[in-house]
Amino acid sequence: MKDSKNTVSQLKKLVQQFCEVRDWDQYHGPKDLSIGIVTEAAELLDHFRFKTETEARNYFKDPKKRLEMEHEVADTLFMLLRLAQMYDIDLSKALSRKMAISNKKYPVHKSKGSNKKYSDL
Amino acid sequence: MKDSKNTVSQLKKLVQQFCEVRDWDQYHGPKDLSIGIVTEAAELLDHFRFKTETEARNYFKDPKKRLEMEHEVADTLFMLLRLAQMYDIDLSKALSRKMAISNKKYPVHKSKGSNKKYSDL
Amino acid sequence: MKDSKNTVSQLKKLVQQFCEVRDWDQYHGPKDLSIGIVTEAAELLDHFRFKTETEARNYFKDPKKRLEMEHEVADTLFMLLRLAQMYDIDLSKALSRKMAISNKKYPVHKSKGSNKKYSDL
Amino acid sequence: MKDSKNTVSQLKKLVQQFCEVRDWDQYHGPKDLSIGIVTEAAELLDHFRFKTETEARNYFKDPKKRLEMEHEVADTLFMLLRLAQMYDIDLSKALSRKMAISNKKYPVHKSKGSNKKYSDL
Repeated sequence: MKDSKNTVSQLKKLVQQFCEVRDWDQYHGPKDLSIGIVTEAAELLDHFRFKTETEARNYFKDPKKRLEMEHEVADTLFMLLRLAQMYDIDLSKALSRKMAISNKKYPVHKSKGSNKKYSDL
Repeated sequence: MKDSKNTVSQLKKLVQQFCEVRDWDQYHGPKDLSIGIVTEAAELLDHFRFKTETEARNYFKDPKKRLEMEHEVADTLFMLLRLAQMYDIDLSKALSRKMAISNKKYPVHKSKGSNKKYSDL
Repeated sequence: MKDSKNTVSQLKKLVQQFCEVRDWDQYHGPKDLSIGIVTEAAELLDHFRFKTETEARNYFKDPKKRLEMEHEVADTLFMLLRLAQMYDIDLSKALSRKMAISNKKYPVHKSKGSNKKYSDL
Repeated sequence: MKDSKNTVSQLKKLVQQFCEVRDWDQYHGPKDLSIGIVTEAAELLDHFRFKTETEARNYFKDPKKRLEMEHEVADTLFMLLRLAQMYDIDLSKALSRKMAISNKKYPVHKSKGSNKKYSDL
């Protein structure tokens, strides 16, 4: 599978099959899946705790460490896809719609080169 | 945009353009993007705090509340796609590779209908 | 040590000594300690993922599981105390000051028996 | 109230009274309170997203920004104290017991001046 070939629907399908064959629909309420996204993402973040930005970037140059990172990212994505699949969220549509809002909150001429939150721009 | 049409690469491209026109590469280290995934996912989770599973599920039946949920999911996905795009992670590949591992950790005959962690199966 | 005897300052002192003898001040910026609070708390939360409220409560009746919970809570508290100690936060003062604000946001006659957020009261 | 005077039990009592007068015991299961700790801590962390370590430290020198930080820390502590109070966790005991374990995992001669995780020491 590759990002250049696969649609988001195909990824959702993969996750759905994995969970349905295990009869997990009963456990996959939106509250628990949101917990899942947070806790998996926190495992990713945990790798960077007390590390400098340079150390963090270097993790991606080390094959063993990169693989660990990619596993954590995959676990997070799994939960996010499962939530979207179970509760009928079209991720592409939701993303482009939200980005249109962000585009107004962060006008290019104000936000260019800035790390400020929209409320401080 | 729709999940049935769009590849993951297309979503990444969208996010990349949004950030590059704002000259944000300098701020988007893996540590800060991981913080971004966690904090956006925590905003999603916050909606379900002190709510029952039934209340949580009902949010998706109320158009206004559903839209709020979808915005939070989109924000989380944005950060995840940006991390993958900046640090060359093929999400489809990472997902299918990690799911092959999970498939062994959670054999169907043991995990079917169970909410136990693999270490307790 | 016991909650009925120990002041918050005494707990802070304990954490400070542990970190200073290891020469860790250099790593304990507010950003990393906040990451620490989130990631430790996420480990606690992870125990409850896909579990019912009843299962979650029962963890505290099982001595082995209770000990695991208490370790996670202790790790979270450690990070919080360290942040307060490093950046001169008087936790008792901060707590009582914030609770005075919450007291107005959640007036008893409106919030009694309700799980609504103040903005929905 | 001040950290040098107040015992942990006194803080717990304060939180307990606030919640009991609002009849909130029914909502305060361990799963939801753990969600509470994570989401409040994530709000604290959110202030530091995309900020440098220097910017993060400087927040504590600006009275207005410091107050915002202290409010977030107080919200996190509130949830942690409530969990401890509801489920009979003696925080001082739990902390000192866990620190005795950490003391062995991070021997001074190995961990001094190091930001490595115990598993990498």
